[in-house]
Amino acid sequence: MQTFNVKTRNFTYPVVIGNGAWRTLRKFPFRKYTSIFVITERGLWNRWGKLFLEESGLSAVTTLLVAPGERSKSLRVLERLSGQLLKQGADRRSCLALFGGGVVGDLGAFLASVYMRGIDCIHVPTTILAQVDSSVGGKTAVNLGEMKNLIGTFHPGRMVVSDFRVLSSLGHWDFRSGLYEVVKHAILGGPALCQQLEASLPRLQLKDREALEAVLPPAVKVKVDVVNRDERERNLRMTLNLGHTFGHALEEATGYRRFLHGEAVGWGLLAIAQLGERLRLLAPEEGTRIARLVQRLGPLPSIRDISTARILRLLPQDKKTVGGKIQWVIPERIGKVRVVSDVPRRAVAAAFQDIQEMDPSLWAPA
Amino acid sequence: MQTFNVKTRNFTYPVVIGNGAWRTLRKFPFRKYTSIFVITERGLWNRWGKLFLEESGLSAVTTLLVAPGERSKSLRVLERLSGQLLKQGADRRSCLALFGGGVVGDLGAFLASVYMRGIDCIHVPTTILAQVDSSVGGKTAVNLGEMKNLIGTFHPGRMVVSDFRVLSSLGHWDFRSGLYEVVKHAILGGPALCQQLEASLPRLQLKDREALEAVLPPAVKVKVDVVNRDERERNLRMTLNLGHTFGHALEEATGYRRFLHGEAVGWGLLAIAQLGERLRLLAPEEGTRIARLVQRLGPLPSIRDISTARILRLLPQDKKTVGGKIQWVIPERIGKVRVVSDVPRRAVAAAFQDIQEMDPSLWAPA
Repeated sequence: MQTFNVKTRNFTYPVVIGNGAWRTLRKFPFRKYTSIFVITERGLWNRWGKLFLEESGLSAVTTLLVAPGERSKSLRVLERLSGQLLKQGADRRSCLALFGGGVVGDLGAFLASVYMRGIDCIHVPTTILAQVDSSVGGKTAVNLGEMKNLIGTFHPGRMVVSDFRVLSSLGHWDFRSGLYEVVKHAILGGPALCQQLEASLPRLQLKDREALEAVLPPAVKVKVDVVNRDERERNLRMTLNLGHTFGHALEEATGYRRFLHGEAVGWGLLAIAQLGERLRLLAPEEGTRIARLVQRLGPLPSIRDISTARILRLLPQDKKTVGGKIQWVIPERIGKVRVVSDVPRRAVAAAFQDIQEMDPSLWAPA
Repeated sequence: MQTFNVKTRNFTYPVVIGNGAWRTLRKFPFRKYTSIFVITERGLWNRWGKLFLEESGLSAVTTLLVAPGERSKSLRVLERLSGQLLKQGADRRSCLALFGGGVVGDLGAFLASVYMRGIDCIHVPTTILAQVDSSVGGKTAVNLGEMKNLIGTFHPGRMVVSDFRVLSSLGHWDFRSGLYEVVKHAILGGPALCQQLEASLPRLQLKDREALEAVLPPAVKVKVDVVNRDERERNLRMTLNLGHTFGHALEEATGYRRFLHGEAVGWGLLAIAQLGERLRLLAPEEGTRIARLVQRLGPLPSIRDISTARILRLLPQDKKTVGGKIQWVIPERIGKVRVVSDVPRRAVAAAFQDIQEMDPSLWAPA
């Protein structure tokens, strides 16, 4: 179990990750709140709620349920939850415990940030994606129609507790999807973390506890370090967008139905490595190492039928686009990326065609 | 024309108030934004838009219209406006100019605070209420059903320009409604401001320019001073709630249809003065002076049919209530209030009955 501290403008909060992390909530000052509300999903809570309450020492909580899936990240669900909070007597000194994956975390933290102009929340992420990425750094969001995360705030939790035990009930595909974000963090983190990940990959995919302990905490640390230096995404934080520009366009092009988020990021990492090579920013052997890491996670859904023209049209809709210019995060080597805004359209198209020519059915899981 | 500076956590912004304030926008760095969007109401913009653009030196703006009235302060309208911004190419470096009264300001600033996790906005308030109160201090909000301002953020504008000229087209009732907030600020401000207001009242109600210049800037300064000492309503800022606890309950009891907001605050000020006297916190002559100021603005809609039981039930729904305890802001004298959380129910009921026994038809306008 490891603890990292994240500094925000107004306070510092701990991120605790490892087996038994929930128990550290016993030290959290729940007593100063008038009431605690758990935002969660029914199946997840049925499976883990009792253990969570025991371990954390919490007793009198009210649970508010959210349906699984990205569609819950909407203003409509926000409105419903706000009404429920009000009806159940939540006031400015209530606290929300966000028990779930990225949807519960993003939506619940947005709710916390706007209910009565902001109340406290804590994150109890239950997926790889949420543990390694979305629970850390304070970004909150709901979607607007097909536009993911268009509406949101910065509202960090007062504590993040990521217990590995809950991952045992995570489905294979969701588990694997989260690993693409781990790959992203390893590329940003540097050769040592990449090597650790490469060595652990076979056991990691079996959810082996030691492999999780070896890889996930350092992957979280990559994010913590970036956020500590640039909370509000002035610049450095944008590097976390690695693989996401292509990734978001692929998700959008397929109506968010074909890919799990991580799978789209997997394709995005492959594409951005190609782009880096084509722009001669990234050495081919480094590009190959990145691609190999992605491919060792196994086959990805096909992208053969998606036209390059459509992707080129969707790319500028990325939220990081400013004044019409896409902000590309391009690897220069493992452990170093550069933000580039002037990338020739031709190179972008060629990079996409490069990955279209790959045959995912050949990628044997590690 | 006067300028006050408001310090926030992250920047300082000027509040410019007086005749010709719009011209000071020529010094605002609009150039650093990729695009400017004006959020406004149709009638208002038809009447004043051209002059505003001339004076401010703005040219290429896109206007987004909001229907007048409190019902526009909803998540639904927020969703629609977000979609319009996205469609029209607003990005993270766009700026919103909020041209209107409290509805446009509260809703528009909330939109600015959550669109792509926060973009800049400026306030161009066009009503007394918005100029003296809601445009200053960074509170943003939408309503949830009947619960006013339940959902919102703190997101101050980068500049506030309150030009008096636009008040000339403000309807009599809206104008007068705003004056109740001016009375509130005068009570908080102290005897000098009260005296100034008492002396100016007859000409002020005729929208006399000199009377506006004499009263509104010092009334804004009361708010600026409080906000500068307590941006996030830890404590001091709560004093601005004077008259609003009863006021909100009255609005709620009548489905937001009977009173303009300021009128409900007018009744609220009368009630809280009575409560102060009953608790022996406020000397009777001071209470009378407060009541006289409210009554000189003319008759208020009747409250005879509203049962005390209903008001007592609605009072704790105030957002300032914590752990079930209403935070009462009670005047001790003109210029000094105290926040009290343990007020006997009997005294509250008696104060409400006191104002029910008043006969508003006897209040001749000053």
